[in-house]
Amino acid sequence: MPLLTGILEAALYVDDLDAAHRFYGQMLGLEQITRVDGRHAFYRAGATIVLLFLPDATAIPPAKDALPVPPHGAHGPGHLCFACPGEALDQMRALLEDHGLTIESDFNWPHGPRSIYVRDPAGNSVEFADPTLWSPTA
Amino acid sequence: MPLLTGILEAALYVDDLDAAHRFYGQMLGLEQITRVDGRHAFYRAGATIVLLFLPDATAIPPAKDALPVPPHGAHGPGHLCFACPGEALDQMRALLEDHGLTIESDFNWPHGPRSIYVRDPAGNSVEFADPTLWSPTA
Repeated sequence: MPLLTGILEAALYVDDLDAAHRFYGQMLGLEQITRVDGRHAFYRAGATIVLLFLPDATAIPPAKDALPVPPHGAHGPGHLCFACPGEALDQMRALLEDHGLTIESDFNWPHGPRSIYVRDPAGNSVEFADPTLWSPTA
Repeated sequence: MPLLTGILEAALYVDDLDAAHRFYGQMLGLEQITRVDGRHAFYRAGATIVLLFLPDATAIPPAKDALPVPPHGAHGPGHLCFACPGEALDQMRALLEDHGLTIESDFNWPHGPRSIYVRDPAGNSVEFADPTLWSPTA
């Protein structure tokens, strides 16, 4: 059994949980698992949980009577890439444009797979890519 | 078919690719897919690719003759959580301690699953958690 089986949580930092919810929850349709106003909102994307944090809140060490969750918090545009089957990327692009988003980039990598990039409301670079981009045989 | 099937790439920002490789490649045993000195190194973790970026390099917009990959780059401690089967977490903790790492936190969440936290060489909060932490029935 491998010790590590995958990525359970990937984090991004945002500045507005309501705006983030319109992007990740309403537009992308990710299931919201939990939200703590003023701190974070978590969403499910397949086997991985997308953690959206307000960095100034998560940088505060836990209280003495709280679970000892280590603090963290980054500033500046991060990056996250969703797996989107290649045959669904046209539909993905249409969804993004229907919501008024600017397509920052849309191209095929030299070995074929396509990636589409937009910005989330916090300025993070969000990519939608054919998972064959990283398949061992791609 | 769902438009989004999971997380294809999760990113962290680091300040030293060699130090990062000792942590992610050598200690954790993740397969390194690619490395561009002075910019990034990518590793495979199950179905997701862990992207380690030097943020001052990735914040530079692409050259006119390069692929139009949007710039990004965050500063400050980020967060990533690896899925590690609950029955393997003792072995995981021993591996981390054998490599001289300080266990910043190691506890069970109220509903049972266990998480272990350390810092990577760049100060990111790296968690190893029983994936039942987020299973719908947990």
